[in-house]
Amino acid sequence: MTDPDGTLPSADSERDARHKARMARKKEVVDAKIAAAQDERGVIVITTGNGKGKSSSGFGMVIRALGHGMRAGVVQFIKGAFPSGEEMFLRRFPEQCAFHVMGEGYTWETQDRARDVAKAEAAWEVACGLLRDPAVGLVLLDELNIALKLHYLDVDKVVADLRARPPMQHVVITGRGAPPALIEAADTVTEMTPVKHAFQQGIKAQRGVEM
Amino acid sequence: MTDPDGTLPSADSERDARHKARMARKKEVVDAKIAAAQDERGVIVITTGNGKGKSSSGFGMVIRALGHGMRAGVVQFIKGAFPSGEEMFLRRFPEQCAFHVMGEGYTWETQDRARDVAKAEAAWEVACGLLRDPAVGLVLLDELNIALKLHYLDVDKVVADLRARPPMQHVVITGRGAPPALIEAADTVTEMTPVKHAFQQGIKAQRGVEM
Repeated sequence: MTDPDGTLPSADSERDARHKARMARKKEVVDAKIAAAQDERGVIVITTGNGKGKSSSGFGMVIRALGHGMRAGVVQFIKGAFPSGEEMFLRRFPEQCAFHVMGEGYTWETQDRARDVAKAEAAWEVACGLLRDPAVGLVLLDELNIALKLHYLDVDKVVADLRARPPMQHVVITGRGAPPALIEAADTVTEMTPVKHAFQQGIKAQRGVEM
Repeated sequence: MTDPDGTLPSADSERDARHKARMARKKEVVDAKIAAAQDERGVIVITTGNGKGKSSSGFGMVIRALGHGMRAGVVQFIKGAFPSGEEMFLRRFPEQCAFHVMGEGYTWETQDRARDVAKAEAAWEVACGLLRDPAVGLVLLDELNIALKLHYLDVDKVVADLRARPPMQHVVITGRGAPPALIEAADTVTEMTPVKHAFQQGIKAQRGVEM
């Protein structure tokens, strides 16, 4: 096949043309979706599944909010046996970000259900303080899913309290095993699946990555 | 069935006992895995897939590193048409976190392959500056996967440069479509899958959540 001027088209120019056409079609699809999405309101985002990245994704959204000058609040439901990097960092900004560590180690360390339930209920009370405050633009409820999965908290009460929050407030909820009623109430839900993990290859949890 | 003292066990006490036994087994499994994982070295973490949370997870790891007093560096390969919340926030700490926005809008906005390739190559040169510096504890290469997927960069060169980095340096790579050679080179890989997205329900991208 030759071009109208009789020369063979180069593989590069064909590839560039195909790329341009593909990108133009993609732009149309994305533009149409953006034009259709017009609502402005607070959203509930859930990150769940067994893969790495659930809590760190929540903390990434916290700094997004802080970068826009919003106030944020964090409640950690399960973690907290030793201070994490994200805790040490965010405690530098007490005016802009409230940070509450309510859990005391994983439940497989404590092995005391009644104590875990009491801790989770106390943590939920702290969360409700943030969920009632319209000055708080984003609330991160870290590992709340685990407290729900283990039935430390009643999911219907949790969903009712979430729905009663200020209309522009965003909530990010992390942890394995998000219950169906919570997924139903959420706007954006991501399942994080491990493809592989350094752990399996004998590498310890690393500062800055896992803690 | 009765207890040795002749009373019926309550549903609560049975549930507590089952919970305790389950948690004890879980603790054994987790303790054994932790005991087996002894290596200390820099890891490559990839977050990929179509779900929300890839970049925010990377930024969460950046603040973990900063919280531990480490230095971090960010290179954004694709985003950057307008300043994001994470950029505005992290630019407050120029001593501790280098921030380079190298992309200029999505490629479906620019529709010029040669220009995109040149941009990606320039971004990779900046990344290599961080990947050669042992004082940088964690490097976030945001949306690098997209540049690789579109063949803007050669994956073999990228993997070789990653392997040549300082032994204790962590690298986090985000974006859809991580190529197999990069997944092979990584220590931890998470696939993020959308269960649902606010976008589909007509809600605009929200400050603090999507940007």
